[in-house]
Amino acid sequence: MEIKVLKDILGANDQMAQSNQQLLDGNHVFAVNLMASPGAGKTSLVLETIKGLQGKVRIGVIEGDISSTFDSELIAQQGVPVVQINTGGECHLDASMIRNALENLPLTDIDLLLVENVGNLVCPAEFNLGEHRKIVVSSVPEGDDKPIKYPAMFIIANAVVLNKTDLLPYVKFDSDRFREAVREINRKLDIFEVSCTTGEGIERWTSWLLAEMGRK
Amino acid sequence: MEIKVLKDILGANDQMAQSNQQLLDGNHVFAVNLMASPGAGKTSLVLETIKGLQGKVRIGVIEGDISSTFDSELIAQQGVPVVQINTGGECHLDASMIRNALENLPLTDIDLLLVENVGNLVCPAEFNLGEHRKIVVSSVPEGDDKPIKYPAMFIIANAVVLNKTDLLPYVKFDSDRFREAVREINRKLDIFEVSCTTGEGIERWTSWLLAEMGRK
Repeated sequence: MEIKVLKDILGANDQMAQSNQQLLDGNHVFAVNLMASPGAGKTSLVLETIKGLQGKVRIGVIEGDISSTFDSELIAQQGVPVVQINTGGECHLDASMIRNALENLPLTDIDLLLVENVGNLVCPAEFNLGEHRKIVVSSVPEGDDKPIKYPAMFIIANAVVLNKTDLLPYVKFDSDRFREAVREINRKLDIFEVSCTTGEGIERWTSWLLAEMGRK
Repeated sequence: MEIKVLKDILGANDQMAQSNQQLLDGNHVFAVNLMASPGAGKTSLVLETIKGLQGKVRIGVIEGDISSTFDSELIAQQGVPVVQINTGGECHLDASMIRNALENLPLTDIDLLLVENVGNLVCPAEFNLGEHRKIVVSSVPEGDDKPIKYPAMFIIANAVVLNKTDLLPYVKFDSDRFREAVREINRKLDIFEVSCTTGEGIERWTSWLLAEMGRK
């Protein structure tokens, strides 16, 4: 019985996700879903991406959090349109939450929509939002074993951003082991090593985004 | 309708949790549920706790992971009885998984049972396992805003371990801001600042555990 309920929910979510993508496509908006553990640096990556693409594409942001509006305030300071979704306990965003947010964004003024999911390396993997690309943000201090321990997220992703490379000298982290683990799960995944603190690697990441958008 | 299903599941879980605690109490086992984001250092904390309490109490471990047996192998090398639970996708442990594990542990040879939950700062908060204490492990590189952004976990916890204090010089993290955020959510929470890399602060944590067990 529970399985049936779950299937209905996922089915309804997929329908709404499809409808979201139609709405995005109709407005020529390319949407990217950023998923990660709490504290991997999703918001910092959003901020660095805004900086890196300034004058090249017009960005909009959807901020997903269980509670608080900290991150959306940081982003609004950049002069970028942002909608905060507070899930009130839910461990992931879903397509109907995104629909609501899309109806509150100036879609005709946005080329690239960055969606920051709730910090959770498990549940968001199961919910399509209508996005064009799914990104996992991993971070150096989390350890090089994360792809092996949380494979679902890496199976469905289109690319991996490995953040906080500036901490490599101070923690045990084997980049080769991380890359091998990722490739074993999904060998099509591009991996971008970045530091949102120093800015290292951000240009390769934003160039990839532009290419995926068909802008390069 | 869905809410009713969820209530039934949680009700059944609470019953099983109660039964687990009876089984633990009958065997004089004190159980601690360690919850955290992926990569906060739960396994390292388990290893340091085993080391710190060697010769004082007999420890057993339940390792919860979505997949892989890495962590339980590390722990078995310490000569400690360990059962691995692979949830196969589930984002948290529940009481019936714990029951299964308890039936595969030598309970009469264990004083302190450390349960490492799945890495997830959201979902495990909702599921009682029959444990005597709930601990949130937070880590410095995750940022000082985690209590504000994931309050549920801090509301239900008995204590907070803040790990990776050796990284304080290299990241933006305001210890006072973290402490204030924790206190605002739950002013009864003890906070232990530790580094599982250097061993700093571990003794204060293990002394607290002993006291909670009534061993001091």
